[in-house]
Amino acid sequence: MKNTKFGCFFLVFLGIFSATFANQEKDRITWLPGQPENVNFAQYSGYVTVDKSAGKALFYWLTESPSNPESKPLLLWLNGGPGCSSVAYGAAEEIGPFHIKNDGKSLYLNKYSWNKEANLLFLESPVGVGFSYSNRSSDLYALGDSRTAKDAYKFLVKWFNRFPQYKHREFYIAGESYAGHYVPQLSQLIYRRNKGIAQPEINFKGFMVGNAVTDDYYDYIGTFEYWWTHGLISDSTYKSLKTACLAGSSQHPSIVCNRALEMADSEFGNIDPYSIYTRPCNSTASMKRSLRGRYPWMTRAYDPCTERYSNQYFNLPEVQLAMHANVTKLSYPWSTCSDIVGTYWSDSPQSMLPIYRELIAGGLKIWVFSGDTDAVVPITATRYSIDALRLPTVNNWSPWYDNGRVGGWSQEYKGLTYVTITGAGHEVPLHRPRQAFILFNHFLKDRSMPSRS
Amino acid sequence: MKNTKFGCFFLVFLGIFSATFANQEKDRITWLPGQPENVNFAQYSGYVTVDKSAGKALFYWLTESPSNPESKPLLLWLNGGPGCSSVAYGAAEEIGPFHIKNDGKSLYLNKYSWNKEANLLFLESPVGVGFSYSNRSSDLYALGDSRTAKDAYKFLVKWFNRFPQYKHREFYIAGESYAGHYVPQLSQLIYRRNKGIAQPEINFKGFMVGNAVTDDYYDYIGTFEYWWTHGLISDSTYKSLKTACLAGSSQHPSIVCNRALEMADSEFGNIDPYSIYTRPCNSTASMKRSLRGRYPWMTRAYDPCTERYSNQYFNLPEVQLAMHANVTKLSYPWSTCSDIVGTYWSDSPQSMLPIYRELIAGGLKIWVFSGDTDAVVPITATRYSIDALRLPTVNNWSPWYDNGRVGGWSQEYKGLTYVTITGAGHEVPLHRPRQAFILFNHFLKDRSMPSRS
Repeated sequence: MKNTKFGCFFLVFLGIFSATFANQEKDRITWLPGQPENVNFAQYSGYVTVDKSAGKALFYWLTESPSNPESKPLLLWLNGGPGCSSVAYGAAEEIGPFHIKNDGKSLYLNKYSWNKEANLLFLESPVGVGFSYSNRSSDLYALGDSRTAKDAYKFLVKWFNRFPQYKHREFYIAGESYAGHYVPQLSQLIYRRNKGIAQPEINFKGFMVGNAVTDDYYDYIGTFEYWWTHGLISDSTYKSLKTACLAGSSQHPSIVCNRALEMADSEFGNIDPYSIYTRPCNSTASMKRSLRGRYPWMTRAYDPCTERYSNQYFNLPEVQLAMHANVTKLSYPWSTCSDIVGTYWSDSPQSMLPIYRELIAGGLKIWVFSGDTDAVVPITATRYSIDALRLPTVNNWSPWYDNGRVGGWSQEYKGLTYVTITGAGHEVPLHRPRQAFILFNHFLKDRSMPSRS
Repeated sequence: MKNTKFGCFFLVFLGIFSATFANQEKDRITWLPGQPENVNFAQYSGYVTVDKSAGKALFYWLTESPSNPESKPLLLWLNGGPGCSSVAYGAAEEIGPFHIKNDGKSLYLNKYSWNKEANLLFLESPVGVGFSYSNRSSDLYALGDSRTAKDAYKFLVKWFNRFPQYKHREFYIAGESYAGHYVPQLSQLIYRRNKGIAQPEINFKGFMVGNAVTDDYYDYIGTFEYWWTHGLISDSTYKSLKTACLAGSSQHPSIVCNRALEMADSEFGNIDPYSIYTRPCNSTASMKRSLRGRYPWMTRAYDPCTERYSNQYFNLPEVQLAMHANVTKLSYPWSTCSDIVGTYWSDSPQSMLPIYRELIAGGLKIWVFSGDTDAVVPITATRYSIDALRLPTVNNWSPWYDNGRVGGWSQEYKGLTYVTITGAGHEVPLHRPRQAFILFNHFLKDRSMPSRS
């Protein structure tokens, strides 16, 4: 009797178990078009439905670690915009194992992929971004921070059910730019839901953000100061910006602030504001695609030429087939950033600092980093925001080294570590892959950045 | 009788004339050790005595233009320090036709030498710098701005007598760094001596300075702000610097200011402050040679590896022989910067702005430029200084272009043109030779920098 009961239980368990793994297996990518020979890690991608009635589904791409993935942490990576794809940027340009060659068809392995240290989960978020969709297209006009966080949380819960081997695994979230909103907001949601649970399934340990939109007031002050001290704008425009913009929201600037921002843009000229000392990919075509969104006077995402290869690659039917993507046959092509999502963005709280305070008090591991040659969410913006937290300093500002050369600077506060990467633009791992990899390693271990040896 | 008289006069004139040209001929460099084959311009170098009784003599090097030197202007180039050699920097690293190979023995032609547009006169100034000397060695401990300007003026008068073909020729002065003091001061002296003379022998037309020490107060404000906004120093050190230094002299900082400057230096780490995004030549040896001078926490001059080749080359006996240098057999080797000169510097007025006002009113052509990745005399320092002049704007801040790419920014004021060169460090023509050459061309023609075409 006992045995039979156990047997029944075991069979039911096995049934659920195999159904789960069957779902997971369906998402397995056996081969990506144009991938190199020596791929030695597993990858999965596909959809997780977050609202069945509306037909809302988010697209993810998991690239596991080549060695001992079962003992390595899981990192969720989010890009910003709002409206930009983590597949386009995080995966294909920054920390992912595959980068795209300039033929737009073949892939090569990224020497400094973060999957060497963690299993990487790239999420296209919210719906309307990349392959993520809603069958109720009106949803795309009603997006904002709150919706994004809630859907991402729903995604996570269901994803962990599809990939139960990751339950209770060390889990981190990282991202850049407007993900400076997504990451703390999603972190807060997980943190709150986990509260009181001894061993939560989403074993959330902390987050890391880079060149992150954090606090509209301090971001504005720091950004305008960056522009002036880096010689990008006139004295008069500097004054206008401070007068016109400081009181407002950066996601929804006033008309007079917009006018000052446009003046600033015209003074910039044809530079790449996401990396001010490097050559822009081309003269005008790819820049300034849009006059809307958080930075209405410029495109919302870094646009070196790599972005073009993403646009080619992820629109190839054979790639979409291999990745189990675009199963509903979207009426528009996959793109690196969605103009609609960015343009109609609704709620965007002016400050993430209250969330920082809550999560620092909660004992989470929090790291913030800045590439110091980015004029879009510059180092000065982040310095002002962090200073406003008034955290006690544990180790004051000092250079960190890679191979005898200064990689940037770092300051350790009680509850937060700040790291800069010198010479890096908005997409730090794109510009300084090796230094970004060192950063990630030290974040995972919560260890001070390497000082001179 | 008439004929005889004229004949006598003619003979005397011819005598003076040929004596002059004979003196000039003595200075001709027939061949420089290690020079390439295709040298197609004349060059002269040697000493001009500025004080016979003290045995004070200044060393110069003239490199003429390869084409039509007789119709091209003359440019005097000065480096700063105080105590640094125009031969070492201006000539051999920046605008001169010869640069030195890394064997320290051979020369190659600089594609963007400014001698394509002007005859270049490099002066080692004041005595104690490079090959320039005083037999009264106590002179070296009593140098300052005023002595330097007076001796340079004496030099010029005598040099024009040795090279009378340059009398009445369009004449300009340019230089960088602490030459931000030398250039306006010497300009003022010439301007005042020329006043009321219809056709002065020194036909002085204007000056240009780059990353120039200009006004101690604004330089300090701008420099500290640059350090902080470029992530080189901590928030706390930024505050200390402002508290401790703003009221004082930058050439002779107070003890408490020095302490803050040293703290800043330690936070910098092993970067090249003269070019913050490029790799320093080596780790520590060549930097921080000295703890004295204007910037007591760092060496007074840019020290990439090129400086080493100068040190080798200009100490070769055959080079000194060919250049008519070191004729008195100095008791010390030629060096790029003199520590003694820098250390014992006396008078150094806190502001050059009154001279700017006088010379702008005098109608001289005045251009100021900044390489924007220099942390020693940064762009922000210069922006504050120029703003303090309260000049009316003719053309507001806008990018200039070279080959479709932003070369920097420019603002035209009534009486002064300001140009930045993006990505260039302290020695602009070393880091951005092509852009510096474009700058010089436009300065000579007093034409707006090229806008997008």
